[in-house]
Amino acid sequence: MSNRIGELKAKLNQSNIDGMIVTNPVSVRYLTGLTAEGTLLITKQENVFITDGRYIEEVNSRLTINDGIICYDYNDLNEEDDLNFFADCEKVGFEEKYVTYVDYSKFLVKYRIKELVEASKFIEKQRMVKDEDEIACIEKACNITDSCFLHLLDFIKVGMTEKEIVAEIVYFFLKNGADGEAFDTIVATGPNSSKPHAIPTDRKILPGDPILIDFGAKYRGYCADMTRTIFAGQPSEEDAKLYEFLLAVQERARMKIKDGASGMEIAKGVETELQARGYDLIHGLGHGVGIEVHEKPILSHKVNWDLQENNVVTCEPGIYIPGRIGIRIEDTVLVKKLESRSLTKSNKNLLTI
Amino acid sequence: MSNRIGELKAKLNQSNIDGMIVTNPVSVRYLTGLTAEGTLLITKQENVFITDGRYIEEVNSRLTINDGIICYDYNDLNEEDDLNFFADCEKVGFEEKYVTYVDYSKFLVKYRIKELVEASKFIEKQRMVKDEDEIACIEKACNITDSCFLHLLDFIKVGMTEKEIVAEIVYFFLKNGADGEAFDTIVATGPNSSKPHAIPTDRKILPGDPILIDFGAKYRGYCADMTRTIFAGQPSEEDAKLYEFLLAVQERARMKIKDGASGMEIAKGVETELQARGYDLIHGLGHGVGIEVHEKPILSHKVNWDLQENNVVTCEPGIYIPGRIGIRIEDTVLVKKLESRSLTKSNKNLLTI
Repeated sequence: MSNRIGELKAKLNQSNIDGMIVTNPVSVRYLTGLTAEGTLLITKQENVFITDGRYIEEVNSRLTINDGIICYDYNDLNEEDDLNFFADCEKVGFEEKYVTYVDYSKFLVKYRIKELVEASKFIEKQRMVKDEDEIACIEKACNITDSCFLHLLDFIKVGMTEKEIVAEIVYFFLKNGADGEAFDTIVATGPNSSKPHAIPTDRKILPGDPILIDFGAKYRGYCADMTRTIFAGQPSEEDAKLYEFLLAVQERARMKIKDGASGMEIAKGVETELQARGYDLIHGLGHGVGIEVHEKPILSHKVNWDLQENNVVTCEPGIYIPGRIGIRIEDTVLVKKLESRSLTKSNKNLLTI
Repeated sequence: MSNRIGELKAKLNQSNIDGMIVTNPVSVRYLTGLTAEGTLLITKQENVFITDGRYIEEVNSRLTINDGIICYDYNDLNEEDDLNFFADCEKVGFEEKYVTYVDYSKFLVKYRIKELVEASKFIEKQRMVKDEDEIACIEKACNITDSCFLHLLDFIKVGMTEKEIVAEIVYFFLKNGADGEAFDTIVATGPNSSKPHAIPTDRKILPGDPILIDFGAKYRGYCADMTRTIFAGQPSEEDAKLYEFLLAVQERARMKIKDGASGMEIAKGVETELQARGYDLIHGLGHGVGIEVHEKPILSHKVNWDLQENNVVTCEPGIYIPGRIGIRIEDTVLVKKLESRSLTKSNKNLLTI
């Protein structure tokens, strides 16, 4: 784990940054493995984790000498201690995309740093390329999600409510080794499916309904993200054709994902295909997945970014016809040198319950 | 709902603030009822909610003319539109405790506001005093939590794991009308109970174990927060005495909660009682509960704050003996003029399963 701090330090040094204040809990977890609330200070001399009485016992039981992190209770630190941490540093980085305006103002007073510089990108870039441990966790999260989908195909019946299905999903995750949901599960049925971020309701499934399920387990802090749209009985011919069209679009886009490919070009390709049929790509094509369910890189027709080996991203085109139907098909995908590998492996053919 | 915006506007005007940029999703939900991602601009002329294609359909279906909010897709706004929103304003507020450093920098360019002023406190103060609708939601969240506790007394058995109990709690919440958990449920058994923020594990309950359960349902966006510590069979005489002592401390503190009481004094009272027996109050005594499970006001021996009628706060002293046992007893409490009313009503006597 301490290797990640070492790698970050090396990158910071290349930019003449002498230290960093890490406050985003996601970054702290990534760099240290700790889930406790606190601040990680990467200084010239040492790495320091400052927490409070609620976490001291847990942190001390987790950190070993190999982590190279000293843990303090912030109640035991005085003003002088705070001033000393960065006393020999010219430039110190902070996470400008996470730190609030008020905390930024506090840092200036507390640590009296000569130059406080924006440094979110260093951790973001490092997190984008997943290591073996991370890929194993995401893969396991995807496996649990796949098992859950299989279970749902058997479980979901006409007459059930969206909320009942959400309850079953969360219960399945927790009973099958997951930490829980990676994000608030979406189950949107019938016309509700046309809202990309629908909140589950007490609506009961009717025959013929599309059932859009956007869900993912979290495993050891890492997320899966998958969407499947199934139908309550045979859909209309029109809806079936729409489904087959979107599936082909999704699969073509997924096949283009590999090291060096332009996320923007892939998304533009999807946009063009959808527009040719009169639809629009109303959200991005995909996003990175890791400790956060939405992280860098973004796959969008608006963002110029080339994919790299060991990025993990979603590929999730959708078609939404307000008030009638929404279809989205999404996989979590591992970027490799010459191809992509889908980590979610659930059946994507048109399925009915 | 629009009344809350009106009240905020009046308070801002009293401080010569002409408008406000509201970006914290919790504030947006509080002021508008909307759960969609987006930015609320309170300007001299109008109230504007700016969102994107994923949410437009939902937002338009929720807002009525009475809400007095105009919704835009940010893709439909150009630079000039952004500049116009606050063109006639001198001072505009922003949420300095939520807005990141990078977003603050963007606001300066985007809206070219003469004076951007810290205004988190206006919404915080307003949110602290709950209205009828809010109290009804919190009460319902507490009722579901109480029902769940009753169910757990029957459900929990020696040999069960902490994670299994968490799964049952979440499932119960979702099956009984809650939105879900108000926060990550803590089930900490045996020596794990001494970590105030323990993460549930696969540890199996052994006879004699303390079982600390810190949990709460969320209902229509509002949280409940309750902790009960029960025992797997008869605890040792020492542990039973410890429990009875803490229960008396908790109940005495809870009785002091009322309009005008000093949160600091109540917390100091608890600290003194604990210290007289050789223990410490290692976390605050309580915190506000509402849309967020942790919000203002804070009840702590370190924070000087007087309670007000219709605050909703927790009262949650705990005793932690590292590696051996932790006991915490917590209620969610409504502050009234002459007394407090516990909204969580589960039995607090020493209970065994």
